[in-house]
Amino acid sequence: MDRRSFLRTSAFGGAAAAATTLAAPAVAQGNMTWRMVTTWPRNFPGLGVGAQRLADRITAATDGQLTVEVFSAGEMVPPLQSLDAVIDGSAEMSHGAAYYWQNKSVGLSFFTGVPFGMTSRELTGWVRHLGGQELWDEIYDEFGVQGFLSGDTGTQTGGWFRDELNGLSDLDGLRFRTPGLGGQVWQKLGASVTNMAAGEIFAALQTGSLDAAEFVGPYNDLALGFHQICKHYYTSSFVEPGLATELVVDKAKYQELPSNIQAIIRDVCQAEYDQVASDFAANDPRALRTLVDEHDVIVHSSFPEDILEAGADGAKEIMQELLESDDDLTRRTARSFVDALKLMRTRTEGTDQVYTRAREQYLDLSDL
Amino acid sequence: MDRRSFLRTSAFGGAAAAATTLAAPAVAQGNMTWRMVTTWPRNFPGLGVGAQRLADRITAATDGQLTVEVFSAGEMVPPLQSLDAVIDGSAEMSHGAAYYWQNKSVGLSFFTGVPFGMTSRELTGWVRHLGGQELWDEIYDEFGVQGFLSGDTGTQTGGWFRDELNGLSDLDGLRFRTPGLGGQVWQKLGASVTNMAAGEIFAALQTGSLDAAEFVGPYNDLALGFHQICKHYYTSSFVEPGLATELVVDKAKYQELPSNIQAIIRDVCQAEYDQVASDFAANDPRALRTLVDEHDVIVHSSFPEDILEAGADGAKEIMQELLESDDDLTRRTARSFVDALKLMRTRTEGTDQVYTRAREQYLDLSDL
Repeated sequence: MDRRSFLRTSAFGGAAAAATTLAAPAVAQGNMTWRMVTTWPRNFPGLGVGAQRLADRITAATDGQLTVEVFSAGEMVPPLQSLDAVIDGSAEMSHGAAYYWQNKSVGLSFFTGVPFGMTSRELTGWVRHLGGQELWDEIYDEFGVQGFLSGDTGTQTGGWFRDELNGLSDLDGLRFRTPGLGGQVWQKLGASVTNMAAGEIFAALQTGSLDAAEFVGPYNDLALGFHQICKHYYTSSFVEPGLATELVVDKAKYQELPSNIQAIIRDVCQAEYDQVASDFAANDPRALRTLVDEHDVIVHSSFPEDILEAGADGAKEIMQELLESDDDLTRRTARSFVDALKLMRTRTEGTDQVYTRAREQYLDLSDL
Repeated sequence: MDRRSFLRTSAFGGAAAAATTLAAPAVAQGNMTWRMVTTWPRNFPGLGVGAQRLADRITAATDGQLTVEVFSAGEMVPPLQSLDAVIDGSAEMSHGAAYYWQNKSVGLSFFTGVPFGMTSRELTGWVRHLGGQELWDEIYDEFGVQGFLSGDTGTQTGGWFRDELNGLSDLDGLRFRTPGLGGQVWQKLGASVTNMAAGEIFAALQTGSLDAAEFVGPYNDLALGFHQICKHYYTSSFVEPGLATELVVDKAKYQELPSNIQAIIRDVCQAEYDQVASDFAANDPRALRTLVDEHDVIVHSSFPEDILEAGADGAKEIMQELLESDDDLTRRTARSFVDALKLMRTRTEGTDQVYTRAREQYLDLSDL
């Protein structure tokens, strides 16, 4: 996708296109058509493409009994009204990310990802096996919807910087585009944080009103052209260790479906979680290779240590606030998340990471 | 599962139960019943349970149009004859691990895992997005079957040792139970490697004819009781960085299925890959906590550095041999695997691992 087509519609806060009037769900010959609105531009690498593929897989597995028609960001409603479209009945499904709806319930952030939180594998461990899904259901029950994990970018990149960062003091007043809870952490570190629409970032960097910006990762960033202005690319984010997407369905309509079609929706969402996460594992490094080989991008895998240390402190403050929330359900969700993270990090750090560190250090494949 | 029930049947080389005579697939009211043989004991944590759940999910998603009946290790055929049962038509499906069939084609090892090879996420990146599935199909075409990834243990543990290892010299003559290509690597390091059935390991450790053994990880190892004899548990294996399971189907019969049922089988296998991998992420650390808190097991996350270094050299020799195989298809599979690993490790090492290392170092959750 080129930058221009991306700019037209974006889930990342851009001006939204006008709503379109659409027919009610068609029911013909026992077949149904459901409308899926999404927060992504149609061909957005990994995520927009994934939403379309998810729809197609449901249609295929049900042999068209449930045909899913996709409306990308702005085609039916503005991207950040996707959940509302399901709640008000103008669509049956929404494909997006739970943290877009933090204004409805702050605990929803945990089902997308939080600063210094879970990796994608840990997130599925919590959601599927340690009580996460049940809490998520409790939050969404209030809105009459049901959420399923449907994809993950994996650990995102830290961002594009005009100048190399030598330490925490370089952040003082740095004008940095980074949204959400991650932005709150960077703010604590001294950065002057802005959230602007994806389509506005390039110009802001170009005119000098921004010093730095982070978006997703190489697979998505390549098309946006930030590398033309910022040559320093920090490839490991500590505020977005994973970003899970969701499929949200109208719960009442979902429960009226035959049980095998309900099962197919669940199965396809879970299959797509794997499909999208592995897509990023394969295609992020291909895009990064292009950025380095063809655009002279300078890669820094890690931020300076004092930034990481202060970032962990800032992230912990946010977790602490959520653990002490006035809202009982947010408090219970935070408690479950933190306990599950404490448990699973022992495997990640004591098994997985010990392996990849050893491989990095001792397995040189350059001559094979 | 207790040790005794595990000993009765095992995919890991135990004596197999007698074959049972079984009816041909039932076709009634347009519904079919397919027989799935597995290499796992029925309630084997993670994997045996996963095979049954996969079968149930296919049955549910097809509303019984395709009902899958599971025969665990030894119930119809001995575990290591599961693939042959599909080839000879006595079953329609087999759930196991591709590397059990190395004697048919050595390249099959890559679809389970090889020493110092891919993590589970990298494996799906290769199989789904970088040409792995196509090569796997080419290998299995020769046998008239089709394989799908259906689960993964993630990085396994290094094993149980009677004495702490201080360096490479401690391996000299060490009698170690570790099978497959991993065993070949340990042999290069000086160990005296044995492959014995899972059910024989405990007694061999008890009588002193073995000094050490590795099996899967805490979730599976706990029930086998090795901790009663060996107190030193090395929690990160470099020879099994992941172990993927497979569902194999009779290709001709699969292709005769309606296309939506074919899609459901693919979707459910991919969903189960995620389900099993996240099961291990959640339940391995729970079992490890029990081993430490209740059984005084001493955890070493890493082997000594000189063992890791020599292990990487040994693993590389094996990759080199596969890259130079006499068999064209094995050579092409090895080439594809090594190239994909070279590509994807840049993300694993430059993004994911940088993050988890920073989290380990700076995020202390003990007081939350």
